[in-house]
This record gives sequence, C-alpha cells and structure tokens, in this order.
Amino acid sequence: MGNCLVAQSGGPTAVINASLAGVVRANQLNPVYDRVLGGLHGIEGTLAGKLFDLTDLSGRDLEILRQTPSSALGTCRYKLKRRNDADFLRLVEVMDDHDIDTLFYIGGNDSMDTVDALAEWAAENAPGKRFIGIPKTVDNDLVPVDHCPGFPSAAKVACQITHATRLDYDAYTRPEVFVLEVMGRDAGWLAASCCATGDVDLLVLPEVDFDKDAFLNEVRAKFDEQGECYIVVSEGAHYADGTYLSAGESANDGFAHAVLGGAAQTLKQMIVDAGIVPRGVVQDLSRAARSSNFAQSLVDVTEAYELGMSAHMRSADPAFTGQVVGIRRDEAAAAEGRYNARFFAAPASEFANQVRRFPAEWILPNYQGVTEEALAYFRPLIEGEPKLVMEGGLPVTLPAFNRR
Amino acid sequence: MGNCLVAQSGGPTAVINASLAGVVRANQLNPVYDRVLGGLHGIEGTLAGKLFDLTDLSGRDLEILRQTPSSALGTCRYKLKRRNDADFLRLVEVMDDHDIDTLFYIGGNDSMDTVDALAEWAAENAPGKRFIGIPKTVDNDLVPVDHCPGFPSAAKVACQITHATRLDYDAYTRPEVFVLEVMGRDAGWLAASCCATGDVDLLVLPEVDFDKDAFLNEVRAKFDEQGECYIVVSEGAHYADGTYLSAGESANDGFAHAVLGGAAQTLKQMIVDAGIVPRGVVQDLSRAARSSNFAQSLVDVTEAYELGMSAHMRSADPAFTGQVVGIRRDEAAAAEGRYNARFFAAPASEFANQVRRFPAEWILPNYQGVTEEALAYFRPLIEGEPKLVMEGGLPVTLPAFNRR
Repeated sequence: MGNCLVAQSGGPTAVINASLAGVVRANQLNPVYDRVLGGLHGIEGTLAGKLFDLTDLSGRDLEILRQTPSSALGTCRYKLKRRNDADFLRLVEVMDDHDIDTLFYIGGNDSMDTVDALAEWAAENAPGKRFIGIPKTVDNDLVPVDHCPGFPSAAKVACQITHATRLDYDAYTRPEVFVLEVMGRDAGWLAASCCATGDVDLLVLPEVDFDKDAFLNEVRAKFDEQGECYIVVSEGAHYADGTYLSAGESANDGFAHAVLGGAAQTLKQMIVDAGIVPRGVVQDLSRAARSSNFAQSLVDVTEAYELGMSAHMRSADPAFTGQVVGIRRDEAAAAEGRYNARFFAAPASEFANQVRRFPAEWILPNYQGVTEEALAYFRPLIEGEPKLVMEGGLPVTLPAFNRR
Repeated sequence: MGNCLVAQSGGPTAVINASLAGVVRANQLNPVYDRVLGGLHGIEGTLAGKLFDLTDLSGRDLEILRQTPSSALGTCRYKLKRRNDADFLRLVEVMDDHDIDTLFYIGGNDSMDTVDALAEWAAENAPGKRFIGIPKTVDNDLVPVDHCPGFPSAAKVACQITHATRLDYDAYTRPEVFVLEVMGRDAGWLAASCCATGDVDLLVLPEVDFDKDAFLNEVRAKFDEQGECYIVVSEGAHYADGTYLSAGESANDGFAHAVLGGAAQTLKQMIVDAGIVPRGVVQDLSRAARSSNFAQSLVDVTEAYELGMSAHMRSADPAFTGQVVGIRRDEAAAAEGRYNARFFAAPASEFANQVRRFPAEWILPNYQGVTEEALAYFRPLIEGEPKLVMEGGLPVTLPAFNRR
C-alpha cells in the first residue's frame, strides 16, 4: 500500500480545508493509502520536500479543520508549467522518496491544468504516478461544474454584508452614493451574487464593457427616482479597451503611485466628479469575503468536504488519474424547486485553462442587475449554516500546518 | 397617560435597534405610555413631524428588530445645538401635537449632550417634558460607562475578520505586508479589540502620535524575525501635528483628488516605499464592521435591549429626566473571572461632549499591541451568539420604518 499526497494551491477560501479534511477522513474510513501526507505551500513546498503527515488527525481536529478558513497547508503562487520536465522530475523524486503514488491537488483552473499536464506526462515518464484534481475558487469560474466549492460561502458573506451595508446606507437622508467592491477579476459571479438580497440598484461586471456615459445616466436615474443608489462592482470591471476601472482615471497623470483606489473608489469619484452627488461611501470586501469561516454556507462546506471524500474514494480505482471531481446540479430536482448536488468526475483537460464567465443571458441591460434565473441559481448555494464550534465568541480554528 | 417618543441618532450599529425594541417591549409589559412613537431620521425628521407608531409591534417583529442592523427609524447628521431655542420650541410643539411628554434619545456623546441641553432648557421653558438618553456607539468612547452598546458586536466582527484574514495572509510565503483598517476616528477601542485574537503584530492607534521612523523600525524587526507583519490601524491614527495618516503622504502635491487611500493604504505604501517588502494587502472594514448583524455578540444585543428596557422602566418615575442609562462592569464578579453587567443611570452632563480614549496604560510601547488587562476587558464583551432567525441563508431583518 502506497501513500498519497494532498496539496492546496491558489487563493484560499472559507472551505478549502473541508476538502482536505474529506480526503483525510475518507482514508480513515477506508485506508486506500498507508499515509496521507500534506504538501506544504502548494507545489512550491512540495518540490522542496516539505510534507506534513495528516493520516491520523483526530475526528475533533478534522471537525475544526472543516471550519478553519484559508489554506491550512499553506499555498503558493508558483505554477507548474507544462513541459517543465525539471519540476516534474523533481516532484516524482519527492513522491518516490515518500512512497507516494497519488497526488490530490486542490486548486483553481491553473491547478487543474497542472493535473492534466502531470497525468499526461506521467503516462509516459512515470507510470503508476497519479494526479487527481479537487476544484476550489471563490471566483466560480471553472467549467464544466455547476459551481465551485468556496464560491457559495464567499457569496454568502458578500450577501450578508450587502444587506447590512444597504440598511446602514438607507438610514441616512443626505445625498451620497454607496459602492461595494468584491473580488472577481475575470468573472463577475461573486458581484452578481450580491443581487440575491434585493438590495443592489446597479451592478458592474467584468462581462460587460464599462460605458461611462451610459452608467452615469443610470446613476442619475436612480437618484432622480429614489434619492439613493447602491452599487456593486466587480474588481475586474473594465472599459472596452481592457483598461480596468481599478487602474483609476488619473493613472496617466504621472503620479501613478498616488492612484490608490480600486474599482469602487473610481466609480465613486466618477459620480462625484459628474456632480450627481457631493459624496459617497466605498466598501471593499477584498479578502474578508473569501476567508470568512464565520459565515460558511452549509451547502458549501458539506460539498467541499464530500468532494474531498469523493476524490479519495474514486481513487481506489488504479486507473483513476488525470481526473477532476466536480458538482453538477440535479436538474430534475431543480425543476421541482429543490436543490440537490450530483458528484461526477471528468478529465482534467475539460477544466483546464478556461474561464467560465457569468452568463450573458443572466445579465440585465443597463447595469440593472441579474435575471430571476440567476437568482434561482444563487439562492440554494448560500442556504444553511454549519454549527460552528465557538470559543470566546470566535470560531475555533486549527493552527496552520505550514506554521507549526 | 401621555405618549413617548424614541429617536435614533448618529452612526448605526448592529444592535441600536435592540435598544429600540427594548423600549417598545417594556411599554408592552407595563404601559407607562399610551403610545410609543418613533421619530424618523433622528431629530431631523422628528422636527418635521415624521413619526411612526411602534406601540403594537408584534413579539415576532420585535424579535426580528433585535437582529436588524442599522437604525430602523433612520438617522441624521443634524445636531441640536445648545441655546437653539427655535429647534427646541419646534420639538416641544411636535411633542405637544402628539401628546408626547418623554423623549428617549438613542445616540452617542453628541446626543447625550442634546439630552442634557434639552432637559436643562425644559426645566424652565417646558415643564413636564422629559429627555432621557440611551447610549450607543461602535467607537466605545463614552464616559462614564464600562462600554457602550454597539461596540462589542463591532469588535466581534473585527476580531473574526482579523483572525480569518490573518490565516489567509499566513497561507502565503512571499514577502508582503498586511494592513487592516478599522473605524475609530478619536479613540482606538475597535482597533485595539482586534488584538483579542492574538493575530496582530503591530497596532497603530489614535492615542499615540504616529512616528514614522519608529514604526518602520518595528515593521523591519517583524519581517526579520518572522518574515511577515500583520498590522491593524485605526482610521483616526495621526502624526504629532494632528495630520491624519488617512490624509495621505501626497496630500499636498496639488493632486488631492487622486489621494484616495485611507490610513491602511498609507501605511502599506510607506512600508513599500521604505523598501521593506515589495508589496502589501490592504483591508478596510469600514461599515462592514458596524452594521454586521450576522455576527452580533450575545452580550451586546442582550445589553442593548435591556438598556432600552431599563430606560423605559426608570422613566416611570416622573422626576426621571436629563438622565442617561449605562452599563458598568461588576467588579466583584470580574475579580472572580466572571463577567456581569450592572445597569445605572447618571446625569446626561456626565456623558456629554467627552471622549473616552483607549487607556494609555493599556497600550504597549512601540506599536506592540495591548496589555493583558486590555484583553481581559475585551474578551467577555464578544462572548456568545444570539440564535438568529434565518431565511434563505441570511438573517431576517425588519424593513426600516423610514422606508415604509
């Protein structure tokens, strides 16, 4: 019986550790592998041989790991490139050193591409070595899944803060605009999800080239109509020429270091400069949305855990490699107004290097938000709250393995 | 039997509506007043005669009101000034029109000054009209209380996000600084509370004049020692000459409109410009901390509710005017390691126009955070979570009265 390795890559999420816990727990229920080793700091630490033995984590530790945000193994921004034989050979060397035949790689589209490349390469150069992908990303931009673990919890935090800050904004009478910025460089899923609370007046997504005049007209109309305007913008919103809003309008004035604002700040300033209102409030959720374990979605943390289990269980088949596990929505249940997840596996090549953008047909024209179909997509994902283990008023977390 | 009026003033909090619910519920338990009327948009709407009858809100509505953030009656930035006889006369006119003899005013130090001024003025000019204060503020800067409703919940959110973003930060290896900014213009209570999680490396408070060189030395030391540095800064942090950090270092370059950053952004840029690390991450909690009902502290929401009840109950004594209710910590219990609140009332003049700063003796030198005494002060306040009524994965809220 050989060992397996699990590593985490890319940006942390509120539930990426639940997938890790799922792999470890599945192996305790059915010890397909002798040891479950964690690679520290993603592929970077793994290549350096930095491993942590997770095999015998207690049930209590695994329960706490499920509610611990961020990547407990640590992550990295280092990407394994296709045809980087040196890195591939070094990885296999580390695997051989530790009697590892299988790598579970938890990450986004880049990581799924790495799984694909490694599996392809191994077929010829390292027979018996297997590479399996477990997706995660708050951006929700992976194909061909219904959604990606991490996104629902980020959406839940974003929705909670949208509603709370909208009520805060509504308490005032004076004319000011409110702009909330959320993560999402290439895809606007997270920004769009904020519409689930019914609080968003205008929505600016990366999927629609930004048109300043058209946008300002809509802002004016909202103020004329209701005396206020609550806007959500995705960090990746951009003009037709590709320039990000977050680059700032004064980016070319020679004082680039002074241009500090993000997309929300740019929009606020644009609205003030247009004389629509004299002031505004900007709120940037930034990392507070992606790692907020105190607002995990029960659907999300359960699915993330079960995806980890599913990947482990499927790997009992020795031919299972170059595959990624994922979630599809049970369409029959959805037709009846119920939500149900279906787990599946598909070749990593289907996941690799593609960006699933927020569907054009779900976007209302003129920054007016999203369609009912979009809301029906979002709503079940943010349902339910896990019963968190609390101490001193805060969710208990497990110390990160990379910091021990 | 006359009526009473309740109004909310200043910045919203996560539990200011719990105090409102407490007044309404107390009157249902013992109808000292015939009607409980809410003044919309603080004193501004009240002067305009915009009232909403709260007397018969259902038990269910009051339960939801307790978990609804922001000011359900609306708020305003309009301040009643001392010796503004026109406003005072108009207020008494509105009170007379609606047979109101008592005003409960929920607000911060300015509002408590208003209560004092109104009571003093009424003694001579409007006998029988009474003015009673119920404190709230996330800034926690009121004397002579132990703490102020709204602060504990804001501190709890700040602590939760501090810990979550610290874990997120810890997941990476590359050299970058992390700076979290929280509210607190004149007092650093909220920033200091973030230290309760044990995650803060350096703390920058308004109570200590900012010394750039000394600060950068500490940042360097942290990176030398541990390769990372997690900083919390209060929005009101300033240099010895009173200039706010949030004013930006380039504020005088003639391009003031391009200076968009807050205190955190300024610190990050300062550290990068000093060549300590090439980059950094900034997170500004801004309004997400003060109105986040999804993370109410049980201690806080209970005390806010009970302060509302206490104010109502004490007002059964016709001589009760010009007073503010507040909370003191039971020192005997504290000596035994337990937390217990004691409710008291004191003349509004004791609360008015003073700022209670974070105690100098609780601040460690060289931006190293706070003492154990400070942590012992914070910890009981963020304890416990109310059982929230949820729907669709979000806390249910009551539609604001000012928007109906």
